[in-house]
Amino acid sequence: MKNSEKKDAAKMGKEPVPGKGLLGRRALLRGALLSAGAAAASVGIAQADDSIGANAPEWMKTPGRSFSPYGTPSKWQEKVQRTIANPPGRPGTGVSRTPLQRLEGTITPAGLHFERHHNGVPDIDPSQHELLIHGMVKRPLAFSTDVLARYPMETHIRFIECSGNSGGYNQAQPPQATSGELNGLLSGSEWTGVRLATLLNEAGVAPGAKWVIAEGADAAAMSRSIPLEKCMDDAMIALFQNGEAIRPEQGYPMRLLLPGFEGNMNVKWIRRLNVTDVPVDARDETSHYTELMPGGKARQFMFPMGAKSLILKPSFGMNLQGPGWYEISGLAWSGAGRIAKVEVSKDAGKTWELAALNAPVLPMALTRFRLPWDWKGQPSTLMSRATDETGDVQPSRADWVAQFVPGQGYHFNGIQAWGIEADGTVKNVYA
Amino acid sequence: MKNSEKKDAAKMGKEPVPGKGLLGRRALLRGALLSAGAAAASVGIAQADDSIGANAPEWMKTPGRSFSPYGTPSKWQEKVQRTIANPPGRPGTGVSRTPLQRLEGTITPAGLHFERHHNGVPDIDPSQHELLIHGMVKRPLAFSTDVLARYPMETHIRFIECSGNSGGYNQAQPPQATSGELNGLLSGSEWTGVRLATLLNEAGVAPGAKWVIAEGADAAAMSRSIPLEKCMDDAMIALFQNGEAIRPEQGYPMRLLLPGFEGNMNVKWIRRLNVTDVPVDARDETSHYTELMPGGKARQFMFPMGAKSLILKPSFGMNLQGPGWYEISGLAWSGAGRIAKVEVSKDAGKTWELAALNAPVLPMALTRFRLPWDWKGQPSTLMSRATDETGDVQPSRADWVAQFVPGQGYHFNGIQAWGIEADGTVKNVYA
Repeated sequence: MKNSEKKDAAKMGKEPVPGKGLLGRRALLRGALLSAGAAAASVGIAQADDSIGANAPEWMKTPGRSFSPYGTPSKWQEKVQRTIANPPGRPGTGVSRTPLQRLEGTITPAGLHFERHHNGVPDIDPSQHELLIHGMVKRPLAFSTDVLARYPMETHIRFIECSGNSGGYNQAQPPQATSGELNGLLSGSEWTGVRLATLLNEAGVAPGAKWVIAEGADAAAMSRSIPLEKCMDDAMIALFQNGEAIRPEQGYPMRLLLPGFEGNMNVKWIRRLNVTDVPVDARDETSHYTELMPGGKARQFMFPMGAKSLILKPSFGMNLQGPGWYEISGLAWSGAGRIAKVEVSKDAGKTWELAALNAPVLPMALTRFRLPWDWKGQPSTLMSRATDETGDVQPSRADWVAQFVPGQGYHFNGIQAWGIEADGTVKNVYA
Repeated sequence: MKNSEKKDAAKMGKEPVPGKGLLGRRALLRGALLSAGAAAASVGIAQADDSIGANAPEWMKTPGRSFSPYGTPSKWQEKVQRTIANPPGRPGTGVSRTPLQRLEGTITPAGLHFERHHNGVPDIDPSQHELLIHGMVKRPLAFSTDVLARYPMETHIRFIECSGNSGGYNQAQPPQATSGELNGLLSGSEWTGVRLATLLNEAGVAPGAKWVIAEGADAAAMSRSIPLEKCMDDAMIALFQNGEAIRPEQGYPMRLLLPGFEGNMNVKWIRRLNVTDVPVDARDETSHYTELMPGGKARQFMFPMGAKSLILKPSFGMNLQGPGWYEISGLAWSGAGRIAKVEVSKDAGKTWELAALNAPVLPMALTRFRLPWDWKGQPSTLMSRATDETGDVQPSRADWVAQFVPGQGYHFNGIQAWGIEADGTVKNVYA
């Protein structure tokens, strides 16, 4: 409680609770109502009427605003925004990151889903857009948005993570930034669309085909090579995101969704799927999104994102307000399937305990983990470590970094750590 | 396909597929690319480059727009809005309905979540808002938004349905309106917050307490009596909706969430929970939200919403475009738990078949059901019938109506029907 708040509380006849409850010191006792409340226990509406007259806030004294055709967040939340980072003079290239530490649950509001664009967001007239399937197929087909809407659909909650996410952890010193600024190229949505295998079967894949070259209808014609096997498995042409038509920044009117694969391959504004026998070696799978290894080599086509987790509460920018109970909470996910467990350490990895996983735990979806923590005020180092259902475990940051040449920042899934100082300050630390 | 589209297709060298595929007649063959595509099958990027030059749409020829701090839907979706209905001169009283037939999946975007206000939407400063728990408790407590955020949280996907939803089905003749206009006082969200039992235990419920009077901080001081048993079970003080802070229209900064109970009881802008031994008989549980029975009696406190389902695809306003394959799709839910099955009839209830339920099927959440349909062009009557895990089955509309006096419209969960005429027109019918 800030001093100004203490003063206000005193003025309003409230004082801190002695501290028997879970959050005793913080939960406030409204002294003035203690006796009134007990006496009026069974009076009901009379008590309520009294209160409206005597203690009602300003917003109860005048009618509120009317209905709206499409709602927006409260004005008090205007700082909860994406963090935009793009090079000077190149407004269409770069990223905007999801403010993960300001959010809860597992669904990212579509308005805050991270962005990664290579030449801006195209304004596509859906009635003029088609998805063309061609190349090594028996009959090339072009699907309009309306035609796609008649096919059998599926709905799945999935994460999308840019393979450059958390790349800052390759720096020699831990960057002091919020978790969203560090890890916000990550979002989760409920996606609905048509299974790509259905459409490929309509076109009839020819013998010998092994790859599908996906191309977006943006001004970069963003292209990636996708293994045909993935396209025939759980890939989807997504038309809806969190219940409504997919947002422009996420590919309106349709995007390729490849559950668990690096974000860049989930090609937005998808317009062409060219079935081939060899990959295309597009710019974004050669000059970008490859892992630079010692000895001058590069690993290419590292598609699924690794098991990973991060603590969002507490995290940088959210200092603890004195000893007491807190909830440690964060997100875990894996490109290989479901999260099996998340362990949390409060002592820099010496000991670990299991966090609770919020049900349902879904494959290739964000999973929220939680662990209550009674902080006594001692300096602490919080870490989280995810294990997925295939047994893949998050490596230490040091082990992860040691695989690559300095500066390589794709596919970081090392363990992250927050240092809590005695005064409650939260810092990014390598531990 | 409209005539103008046929003309465009001819101009662009496309013609309808002969009809071997799932949607053969509708999926379009891009004739011009048939040979080029086959020949260029393994060429990859060269083929893509050709296409960008020759056939690229306008939006690929110029850089797209830049990044945005908080995104909005595509301008092409501007008609996907809530439908507002309120009495003349009373801007804060009434409803806005979710356009269910324009949405997919199970999550309702927060901007399209239905609204029901009794005196407008208050503009609450979260730093000045408190939740007071008082009455028959050992110590009255007032929880600020910041304090609540330190308590252990839970995340659940739940529906909220106004008990007046679908009330139009009490009319003698079936209203010809979209499913959203008829049934759109229904939305689904991922809610995150603190279990109410945790907070009641902090305050210490006194012996003899049986009810909790919940009051909102709106200018109507909207109040309802909630059984203490529900408050100690799965009730939640929700702070987040679909990942972000709860929207003003849904109760910012906090609302009471009572999974499965009629919407009105999920008190928004919750400011007081008065623990009592008797209900309060508030306006919204006496003059409203009661069921008028034959003989001048009324049923009060009918809290959980019944098992219910509705078909959204196809539905009124979405006429079929000729014979062929369609997906029948809709939503099912129950206030008593999970949906066990949804049956679909295409012949006005003579025969029924099981629809597929989209996993995960969660308790007190919207469940999407789907069934492919090869429509031969015959007049048909589509119906859906939900059964929940307690065995509760949707009644026929006639059986439902027969329970009450004419005009009673609360808690309608009868079976709905869409009549499909030979020309594909969809009408609301009683069957």
